[in-house]
Amino acid sequence: MERHGRHFQDELDELKGRLLEMGGLAEERLRLAVRSVVDRDNALVERVLVGDAAINQLHIEIDDRCFKLLALHQPMAVDLRAIVAAVKINTDLERVGDLAVNIAEAVRRYLRHPAVKELIDIPKMAELAQVMLRDALDAFVRRDVDLAQQVLAQDDDLDSLKTQVFRELLTYMLRDASTIEPSLDLILISRHLERIGDHATNVAEDVIFMVSAKDVRHQ
Amino acid sequence: MERHGRHFQDELDELKGRLLEMGGLAEERLRLAVRSVVDRDNALVERVLVGDAAINQLHIEIDDRCFKLLALHQPMAVDLRAIVAAVKINTDLERVGDLAVNIAEAVRRYLRHPAVKELIDIPKMAELAQVMLRDALDAFVRRDVDLAQQVLAQDDDLDSLKTQVFRELLTYMLRDASTIEPSLDLILISRHLERIGDHATNVAEDVIFMVSAKDVRHQ
Repeated sequence: MERHGRHFQDELDELKGRLLEMGGLAEERLRLAVRSVVDRDNALVERVLVGDAAINQLHIEIDDRCFKLLALHQPMAVDLRAIVAAVKINTDLERVGDLAVNIAEAVRRYLRHPAVKELIDIPKMAELAQVMLRDALDAFVRRDVDLAQQVLAQDDDLDSLKTQVFRELLTYMLRDASTIEPSLDLILISRHLERIGDHATNVAEDVIFMVSAKDVRHQ
Repeated sequence: MERHGRHFQDELDELKGRLLEMGGLAEERLRLAVRSVVDRDNALVERVLVGDAAINQLHIEIDDRCFKLLALHQPMAVDLRAIVAAVKINTDLERVGDLAVNIAEAVRRYLRHPAVKELIDIPKMAELAQVMLRDALDAFVRRDVDLAQQVLAQDDDLDSLKTQVFRELLTYMLRDASTIEPSLDLILISRHLERIGDHATNVAEDVIFMVSAKDVRHQ
């Protein structure tokens, strides 16, 4: 740490703060998108769809900060891995924002039909995905490998919920053709939520690599 | 170029070669996965599913090369951007390999049912996704912004095909409930192909940023 001095560490802390901010924005958009389908709230759908200008701006700013840190400070070892991890995490968070838009698009179509069923597993999936995302980012900031490992473990639960949603909706579709279109959108929503969990998993893997220089992918 | 000398440029060329190799492997797996559904070939499905050990190994090796280049050579400007782009492209290509597995999983389920229809648009989507991927990687190696722009333009065609596939299959499902399950898998396959196009788009955007230091995302 002494090697780069105060200025570098301040910049790195600033970078982490921005990533947390971006994570918070992505999480908030996910929360709104899922609430829009649970509450059948078209106005909320539109709020998610108007765009994520703040996330997009942060995405570019964070990338830029990473480049400057790499170019001006020539970090080594864990600091270098932290900045490359930040580049990757930045991409993952931006995709989470995009997926919130994809969810809102599916909700918009879904709300044109009567409700297929009371939604239980989809809000559960969203809750789990949010927890994973938050934990993964906390693990990054605190360089906490145990917390990152917990995130990896939770991904299986999300996967089971997705399979459950699929099976249940399939029975509805087979029984009553009028549920086919709206069920398709619920299935898509559950897939988008699963992908948000995948992004949280990516972040957790980056944290483990950053801290331990150990590659846990592909094991 | 003179700044880092011969050795650095050799290493950078080696890195590019590895990325092309990885792109070739990912493309080959995509090709096999799509052929397995067109030819209804279960043996081919299993070949894709046994795993992508070669891709996973390259994924780790390429990441490692990028870290070493960043740590040992402290590259600046376009070289720095090229290496950070390589880290990102590496991630995108690995995801393409995963998506080939996802396609094969859907094909395995699909082949338990009689064919819903002759497949025309799905092979077309696969062909387009492959071209986009190849062009994006060529653009990276040649630092060719025009070619990268072409890739971005093709993404709309892929999107239209996906919508067409969805609409057509929906009419089948509404008409005949026995087509619901297999149609769902075809819809998933088309979504996976669309995502492969998204990864090609990411690569193209990285190329444009690498060459021109201009961020074309979020415009």
